[in-house]
Amino acid sequence: MADIIDGRAIAGRLDEETRTKVEELVAAGCQRPGLAVILVGDDPASEIYVRHKIRACERVGIRSSKYALPADTGQEELLALIEALNDDDTVHGILCQVPLPDQIDTRLVLGAIAPEKDVDGFHPVNVGRLSTGTGGIVPCTPLGVMMMLETVIDRFEGLDAVVIGKSNIVGKPIANLLLDAECTVTVTHIHTAGLPEIVRQADIVVAAAGAPELVRGFWIKEGAVIIDVGITRVQTPEGKTRLTGDVAFDEVQHARAVSPVPGGVGPMTIACLLSNTQRAARAMMLGERSRDPGIDYADLPTRSVLAGGATAGER
Amino acid sequence: MADIIDGRAIAGRLDEETRTKVEELVAAGCQRPGLAVILVGDDPASEIYVRHKIRACERVGIRSSKYALPADTGQEELLALIEALNDDDTVHGILCQVPLPDQIDTRLVLGAIAPEKDVDGFHPVNVGRLSTGTGGIVPCTPLGVMMMLETVIDRFEGLDAVVIGKSNIVGKPIANLLLDAECTVTVTHIHTAGLPEIVRQADIVVAAAGAPELVRGFWIKEGAVIIDVGITRVQTPEGKTRLTGDVAFDEVQHARAVSPVPGGVGPMTIACLLSNTQRAARAMMLGERSRDPGIDYADLPTRSVLAGGATAGER
Repeated sequence: MADIIDGRAIAGRLDEETRTKVEELVAAGCQRPGLAVILVGDDPASEIYVRHKIRACERVGIRSSKYALPADTGQEELLALIEALNDDDTVHGILCQVPLPDQIDTRLVLGAIAPEKDVDGFHPVNVGRLSTGTGGIVPCTPLGVMMMLETVIDRFEGLDAVVIGKSNIVGKPIANLLLDAECTVTVTHIHTAGLPEIVRQADIVVAAAGAPELVRGFWIKEGAVIIDVGITRVQTPEGKTRLTGDVAFDEVQHARAVSPVPGGVGPMTIACLLSNTQRAARAMMLGERSRDPGIDYADLPTRSVLAGGATAGER
Repeated sequence: MADIIDGRAIAGRLDEETRTKVEELVAAGCQRPGLAVILVGDDPASEIYVRHKIRACERVGIRSSKYALPADTGQEELLALIEALNDDDTVHGILCQVPLPDQIDTRLVLGAIAPEKDVDGFHPVNVGRLSTGTGGIVPCTPLGVMMMLETVIDRFEGLDAVVIGKSNIVGKPIANLLLDAECTVTVTHIHTAGLPEIVRQADIVVAAAGAPELVRGFWIKEGAVIIDVGITRVQTPEGKTRLTGDVAFDEVQHARAVSPVPGGVGPMTIACLLSNTQRAARAMMLGERSRDPGIDYADLPTRSVLAGGATAGER
């Protein structure tokens, strides 16, 4: 039987750490870390996500403020709010829930958030820093995946990792993190030929295709470690619905370890948002007053990279 | 016999196009595109590179200005120069030759160049945009590699590409471009186990390890396309030196096509610098006065991506 990589338990431990570090900051005379959450319109799924995030803040002692704007909010108005939050010293993290209504340019809005408060890690500067291994804020789901892998893998160097899916917010950043951890990394996607054979080479499989039970038992090498990022609601034969991952869970029991759905990556994503907010607040308040204090991810396997220090280019 | 991917010839055609577009801009009443080249200290190799770049500008009608600063230049002084060049409307591209002296924080300096003038494509914003396929300026060597591949490959979708080397300025951005062209991409490096077997699966091999003749004939699948980015000066048995690539050129004649060293990627890198400068000038002077006009790479295979348009994140 494969070991279960229990996302809920790992998230619980991370929340405990975040809570401790938040109170450390407060005890040191700093402000309580604050997260501003912006929700535009009334998409029911977005409302649920935002509610979960705000409740999670309460659990770990992070102050949260919610900015609910009507669906017809203009772009300039939203940009003005972000600018005000950028300038607000009591706000250490800013999250703008996507998708945004059509009249708003998502790329422009996400790029307007100050990089040091961009706790989702979507700002081009943070994406660029992740890509070059020069610090910055790491997006929540990829960060959670790495932390989960770290619970079962001691040494990443030279392992073969296959990432299924190349989205900007999951597949590509995970590939970057695995590469920085010195894995050999293959990124596959909808146009990939011979996917089962490619996955069968892998020591680490990260499935982020959003295709229910795409990854079958015979795709998986004995002893591989699997993180299942997919989460899709599917109809059961009895007419009910259930949440299903990208991996046929029952078929991969010859793996060394596998994360379940639900209870895997999902809880980690929110825990990483809280952790990012705490880290961002710490960097802002305790960091040396340099132009670029950077975020401290010294507790991660890829710490040498995430802690920054390399230069952007040599030639 | 493998076809030769003649970098000099392709660079010549690209220069011709750049020259034509520069004169188009001038004929349209715009300023002549201008490149500012900053050189700090007296590293002989850097001096040669800078001289080559300035001469290349002359060839295509781009104005160049050289700022040679002494080796003991302070960081603040350099940053002040960059700020002045950022604000100078007659300067459309800024290039700061690396390596920089030890007292200067390279990352800080490269990040101070305005992203729209960063014709090397090293600014985190440009790295991030390349990573997410949302426009930006593409670094010169990776851009040149894609253009070379385009001369022999019509359809990239689903091809297996292997990149050897994961540097920030070559390996990683090339992997991004190949991924955006819908290849299945594997990035390998010094810690990769079983490199010959991995390379033997590849339809496209980009060798950027800086290890002379690392890639041997038996590593290469019949009909593969090889771009050799490596360039190392090695000693010959006769006591002379010659430039050698990462690929054992004579052994890979069963490939479909291969780029030589010298005369391959090298000339393309400078041609792409000129092309980037022209494109940046065009975006600045002819682009709509939006906040983010973007660079036009519509002539590239990955045009849908490089032209921008996608948003940085959805969930």
